[in-house]
Amino acid sequence: MRLGTLRLAAPGEAPTATVAVRVDEREAVELPGVADVGALLAGADWRERAAAADGRRHALADLEPRAWAPPVLRPSKIVCVGLNYRNHILEMGRELPAHPTLFAKYPEALVGPYDPIVLPAHAADAVDWEGEVAVVVGATARRLDEAAARAAIAGYAVLNDVTMRDYQYRTAQWLQGKTFEATTPFGPWLTVAGAGPLTGDLRTVVDEKQVQHTAVDDMVFGPAALVAYVSQILTLHPGDVIATGTPGGVGHARTPPRYLRPGHVLTTSVTGLGELRNDVVAEA
Amino acid sequence: MRLGTLRLAAPGEAPTATVAVRVDEREAVELPGVADVGALLAGADWRERAAAADGRRHALADLEPRAWAPPVLRPSKIVCVGLNYRNHILEMGRELPAHPTLFAKYPEALVGPYDPIVLPAHAADAVDWEGEVAVVVGATARRLDEAAARAAIAGYAVLNDVTMRDYQYRTAQWLQGKTFEATTPFGPWLTVAGAGPLTGDLRTVVDEKQVQHTAVDDMVFGPAALVAYVSQILTLHPGDVIATGTPGGVGHARTPPRYLRPGHVLTTSVTGLGELRNDVVAEA
Repeated sequence: MRLGTLRLAAPGEAPTATVAVRVDEREAVELPGVADVGALLAGADWRERAAAADGRRHALADLEPRAWAPPVLRPSKIVCVGLNYRNHILEMGRELPAHPTLFAKYPEALVGPYDPIVLPAHAADAVDWEGEVAVVVGATARRLDEAAARAAIAGYAVLNDVTMRDYQYRTAQWLQGKTFEATTPFGPWLTVAGAGPLTGDLRTVVDEKQVQHTAVDDMVFGPAALVAYVSQILTLHPGDVIATGTPGGVGHARTPPRYLRPGHVLTTSVTGLGELRNDVVAEA
Repeated sequence: MRLGTLRLAAPGEAPTATVAVRVDEREAVELPGVADVGALLAGADWRERAAAADGRRHALADLEPRAWAPPVLRPSKIVCVGLNYRNHILEMGRELPAHPTLFAKYPEALVGPYDPIVLPAHAADAVDWEGEVAVVVGATARRLDEAAARAAIAGYAVLNDVTMRDYQYRTAQWLQGKTFEATTPFGPWLTVAGAGPLTGDLRTVVDEKQVQHTAVDDMVFGPAALVAYVSQILTLHPGDVIATGTPGGVGHARTPPRYLRPGHVLTTSVTGLGELRNDVVAEA
């Protein structure tokens, strides 16, 4: 089952509201009165409610790409993970870490899966891609072991942790390069977790050139391990997001470095989870 | 003017709700229907509403300390600043930084001004104090210059950025040591900003021994500069908190290191802003 959030608009007008939808093979079915997937997940019976949804239907082929909002509009928190792909760490000659590296992103950073990424005029010089799997929490999670943490995962989506490298490295703490307003695409929808582990390939493409490619089961700390770890520190709430880290292939590590420029198209996909597609544009 | 948040309880019962109050010299006056200072600040006319408040009155002398909640119960974000006291940086032989070091704390970390700090059983070994001035934002702030940023500050409170040093230094990113659930006291109330700069002394006392003392106007990046800086990155909302950094005197830097232990009383005060007083207790 897939769950998304649509921006509602009268024909020719700007959106004034959003609604959660179940994303079936050919159509999106509204959950009337539920503003986004975050609001849906706040109820313990979210799976049943979503499965039973029978509201207004939208043919997927008729939806404007910009109608898709971030599935959770405003997570109460976004926890990001650094250095989490085994092959990338080993190829760099580093040891596998004993603990996950965690940092934050504020919800203002999110944009929809097909929204443009507007390069801020004062921070446009070193904007880099970081394709990632996003874990979306589906229950209140506090001090869980890994088995209970697995059960607390609602599902997965795609996220690109777009990073201003100049701001990231202004100081020792990465936060300021990680949380620029409206620069982190997230979506296109939540794919509800199945019984097995997450598998498949993550790919980031910049202007039709593949720049990142990894098997997502090569994480040092997988989704359940991350939920369990974070839940030892504080409570995770339904709709909270853990961005699980990016593999090798970022632009900053290239010689010469390569960054996002106006006119680029950034595509981020994970097998089975869908694809983000974002035009990179200069600030007006 | 001072603004706080009280936990409401029937006699002998656990609190079931909270209410914003104006804290006058001898009594706290309720703003009926306003759940906390954050909800108050969300309205542009908050100064007038607070000044006109005429709800139920509580003699300050009759209030239980635990009746005081964090003034903003759940800021949409808490931005913390590292390395921000000039004298401390210079005495350590370091150069003054060109940019503020920013990191995050999630709202789950907050407790009230007189709540106990419960040392988590699995993270009790290296818990340290960091007395700080908290800036509370009073307007939507986006890409402001320093003069406009000053006008966007609602006021100031006291905060202790209690830190698990072992978790802080597990990796290069400090977040996980900074955001343990219910370990960061904040309050006792918001003191509305006046026309002039913030002055006075910050003091942290552990078991009657003063461990930190500084003049708060010795910050490298003052409150307005910090609001202006963060607002270049993303939007600050009413009720958002910037913790402005701690001076020298933390326990981790002592020889031998000194940490918070069960039975300690942690007192954090700033001239004119009030005092936090927190018992340190072991987890049951």
